Amino acid sequence: MPRLAIIGLGLIGGSIGLALKRAQLPDLEIVGHDAEWGVNRKARKLGAIDSEARTPESAVEGATLTVIATPILQVRPVLERIASVLGEGVTVTDTASTKRDVLAWAEELLPDTVNFIGGHPIAGTEQAGIDAADADLFQRRPWAISPSIRASEQAIQSVEDMITLTGARPTIIDAAEHDSYLAAVSHLPLVVSSTLFSLVSGSQAWPELAALAGPGFESATRLASSSPSLSHDISLTNRENLLHWLDRFDEELRRFRGLVADAGNQEELFEAFATVQTARDAFLEAPPEKPGPDRPTDTASAGERMMTFMVGDYVVRRTKELQKLMDKRESDAEQRRKRGGR
Amino acid sequence: MPRLAIIGLGLIGGSIGLALKRAQLPDLEIVGHDAEWGVNRKARKLGAIDSEARTPESAVEGATLTVIATPILQVRPVLERIASVLGEGVTVTDTASTKRDVLAWAEELLPDTVNFIGGHPIAGTEQAGIDAADADLFQRRPWAISPSIRASEQAIQSVEDMITLTGARPTIIDAAEHDSYLAAVSHLPLVVSSTLFSLVSGSQAWPELAALAGPGFESATRLASSSPSLSHDISLTNRENLLHWLDRFDEELRRFRGLVADAGNQEELFEAFATVQTARDAFLEAPPEKPGPDRPTDTASAGERMMTFMVGDYVVRRTKELQKLMDKRESDAEQRRKRGGR
Repeated sequence: MPRLAIIGLGLIGGSIGLALKRAQLPDLEIVGHDAEWGVNRKARKLGAIDSEARTPESAVEGATLTVIATPILQVRPVLERIASVLGEGVTVTDTASTKRDVLAWAEELLPDTVNFIGGHPIAGTEQAGIDAADADLFQRRPWAISPSIRASEQAIQSVEDMITLTGARPTIIDAAEHDSYLAAVSHLPLVVSSTLFSLVSGSQAWPELAALAGPGFESATRLASSSPSLSHDISLTNRENLLHWLDRFDEELRRFRGLVADAGNQEELFEAFATVQTARDAFLEAPPEKPGPDRPTDTASAGERMMTFMVGDYVVRRTKELQKLMDKRESDAEQRRKRGGR
Repeated sequence: MPRLAIIGLGLIGGSIGLALKRAQLPDLEIVGHDAEWGVNRKARKLGAIDSEARTPESAVEGATLTVIATPILQVRPVLERIASVLGEGVTVTDTASTKRDVLAWAEELLPDTVNFIGGHPIAGTEQAGIDAADADLFQRRPWAISPSIRASEQAIQSVEDMITLTGARPTIIDAAEHDSYLAAVSHLPLVVSSTLFSLVSGSQAWPELAALAGPGFESATRLASSSPSLSHDISLTNRENLLHWLDRFDEELRRFRGLVADAGNQEELFEAFATVQTARDAFLEAPPEKPGPDRPTDTASAGERMMTFMVGDYVVRRTKELQKLMDKRESDAEQRRKRGGR
């Protein structure tokens, strides 16, 4: 039976499993592995995976498509472990929030015959773990993919199909571009939000302040509740872009500070706030074209195509294995004949 | 009939009207006035007010309790206009986001016989206007009140009762303290959020960035959609406190920037994020004691007490008016007698 492996069964890995199971693909087996053993069982009970694997190696054994959904810094050790077990021509993707380092690790560690396609679902909440997993997590969200140079068109298509099946919208983007864009819309807000909460909650008057905090404070600091290892890994693997945006943010903050301080020029301050409000309202009302696949997004055909690909790959690999067995049998027979002839 | 006046029928004024109407106080007339004429009719149709007044002056005529729910900078001109019309011993409150300037204006403009009690419901959304008004807006939210020195205990109690009736929790706080606390938990986040959106949406790559923006970006920049006049008025009337917190924020941002930049000391960066996450989770799970009234919050007794106060005041004022009429009649008769005697 064609097999899909998910390594890392937290919010993202668990939600991918739930979304794919809901798509009810015939004859697809989803094998899962999480470093925390209790999580494997929970994922199976929740219906996110069909079977549990004890190691990353055993999870990818015989898998046509592998999804690595671990924390960013865990992707490298996972690639190291599975590199020698991956079958020829299989496809591997990941879900890490930064892509350049991940692509470099795949290039360094995986055999040339493996199709690596970096991935990043732009979804999630500040909650983490299998308990927060949700089949709807990816609905209508963008899901960036950055294929390695060696990845085949067919492999890219199968990852796009898998993404479409989760309800998300696949969009191909260069890994370096991805990281520079995400620094602005995701990693900078993360640090700004954390800074804001750190400052205010570190104040001596925090008990009084907290009692007066309203919904505005809660949403402005929501990202401060993100997993610290996610925030850390992002900062580490996207440092240059993040520093660039932090510096630009600091400049813009000084501009606003200047306008607030300038009692003689209140019109300009009003204009600055009005410009921002207008821009954000426009963004909310008519968001810029969200990326979509170049090919049709029909989930039924995506499922069919993905399964055809996976079954095809499965059959090819089975044939190769049979061929190997037959070759071996023949060479054994040859050996025996030779020995018998001596 | 005892009368309550609401001047300014936007999100806050409209929601106060809706919440008080829902409390179904017997014989309370709510008169409303908004500078935009169409809003008055809409407010009446929505059931936020019983009757429309053409001017602030006519709204407060005969009103025992007046709520000024205009934009901050409109509070002063409204006080100027109503000062001479307010009856003796009546109570006036407001809903502005900053309190020190408002208290100073009241001190300067209102007659000594008027009880002024500054107020600030810590509620609201980034939406504005009567169309967004909601009877539930204040449920379980803190509502700060800063009474002027001259305000009577009874007047303070009646404002607390009105607040309790809207579902909010009144808490007495010094005006200067209020402004310094709110600078941290409300006005700083407003400027930070606006700065973030301004920077990113001003980027040349904005179309690409916007397409990749996720829910984190949306919540971190939610406050950037606030009314620009609100943001402007807050910055103007709370400038010193806001600048103070902007400077502290900038320092904390530099600390985080330093940790991100310091490749040799990744543990400290992780610790910083972990500390923030832990603190925010604690804040969400067990928020510091939200302020509550010293007196019982039973809304039934709050309504009864407020009405007793308002009816009492109404009767006292009617008696005074009758007394004046009788005095006048007597002095007229005296005049006539004198004239007749000549």
